[in-house]
Amino acid sequence: MSDNPAVYAPVIVLVHPQLGENIGKAARAMLNFGLTEMRLVAPRDGWPNPSAGPAASGADIVLDGATVYDTLAEAVADCTNIYATTVRKRGVTKPVVNPAEAASEIFTAPGRSAILFGPERSGLETDHVAIARKILTVPINPDFGSLNLAQAVILCAYEWSRIAAQGLESPPQVDLDPPSPQAELDGLIEQLFSLLESRNYFFPEARVVATKRTLVNLLTKPGWNSLEVRTLRGVVSALEKPAAPGQDS
Amino acid sequence: MSDNPAVYAPVIVLVHPQLGENIGKAARAMLNFGLTEMRLVAPRDGWPNPSAGPAASGADIVLDGATVYDTLAEAVADCTNIYATTVRKRGVTKPVVNPAEAASEIFTAPGRSAILFGPERSGLETDHVAIARKILTVPINPDFGSLNLAQAVILCAYEWSRIAAQGLESPPQVDLDPPSPQAELDGLIEQLFSLLESRNYFFPEARVVATKRTLVNLLTKPGWNSLEVRTLRGVVSALEKPAAPGQDS
Repeated sequence: MSDNPAVYAPVIVLVHPQLGENIGKAARAMLNFGLTEMRLVAPRDGWPNPSAGPAASGADIVLDGATVYDTLAEAVADCTNIYATTVRKRGVTKPVVNPAEAASEIFTAPGRSAILFGPERSGLETDHVAIARKILTVPINPDFGSLNLAQAVILCAYEWSRIAAQGLESPPQVDLDPPSPQAELDGLIEQLFSLLESRNYFFPEARVVATKRTLVNLLTKPGWNSLEVRTLRGVVSALEKPAAPGQDS
Repeated sequence: MSDNPAVYAPVIVLVHPQLGENIGKAARAMLNFGLTEMRLVAPRDGWPNPSAGPAASGADIVLDGATVYDTLAEAVADCTNIYATTVRKRGVTKPVVNPAEAASEIFTAPGRSAILFGPERSGLETDHVAIARKILTVPINPDFGSLNLAQAVILCAYEWSRIAAQGLESPPQVDLDPPSPQAELDGLIEQLFSLLESRNYFFPEARVVATKRTLVNLLTKPGWNSLEVRTLRGVVSALEKPAAPGQDS
């Protein structure tokens, strides 16, 4: 048994990236500061992409190891600590951190962390932001915010590298009850949605997407641990049954 | 006499820059973090350079204000505090600082500060490094150092911006939606408990107190706001109804 729990470097998740060149540049930005694990969610032009390699300027280890997923949920299923990078206010009630704060948190987080980056043109969609525990925002010139993908990645990687170099002396906290992996939380959410559908909760049709997003946001917020998620699944399972005889429901 | 001496943002000096595109990208990197003063020492392709504008993505204020000098000495004649960026050891016996340390020093320096960046391919020459007070090195992956000009600029500008903002460093936590008052949360909990009782969830009897405590804990953890509590009460209300006809519950 080691006294030093593992430190996990963050996974960089590019959601629907557009140009292969930008994927390559992001890989180069990562490796400059020692990050090697890249995950791609449905890259627009498929994968591998011949434009990525030249732009990576030798960061082949990152591109060769990149894994591809159909959905964001699959890409972060093993992550307990998820950040959505966005510069825009989106009316989501999640805590906002800067890259340095995120790096500190990631360093001491007990499980895998992921930092999500949206497509170059449009950034993360609201539904992608919804599954994140926190918003990661680079404090930028309010009169000229023009960070490209690789620049946003490099600032996050740079801060991680700084914290990782400084923090090696102070061992990370041991959280006995780390947040449940995203896949477990997704299981709870699916079970609840399925039950609510059976009760015609999602009505009217035009509101379904927004209502589900609200629920995902508020269920993601607490960062429940595995025991808590199991407890809640027990609650939902109980509610799937009809009312007991002689009881008003 | 003011108690607050003037704070001078650093001048970014590009020494013999090669591609206009990279000058434009450097300008964009600067303005993202509020730096506006660029000086060019004998740019290879002259100045103005038509490739710079498009690459600046709108940071025209930086390019339009850029001044051109024949020699580095002229470019930094008014500066008291000069940093030479380099990743390579050059056998020069100058203090080495990282971008954060440089930014702190610049913030408190009494005069103008300049950060020098060399040509894209070769970096600063020894004679250029010689006039600097200190070496500025970005701590980088020893196995993969591949920072381009704009990336080196952006990291320096980012650190300057962080130091300059100080109190504003972390994005303000705009808490438009404070946690719901306890009474509202209690209302949700009571409603849920009542429903769960009707489904014989609390069983066996000996576990009721502990189970309720677990649920109260995990429902209290998120600090939901009033809107979120109301949403969840809507969920519970939906579940109080029997399954819709033709649906499995």
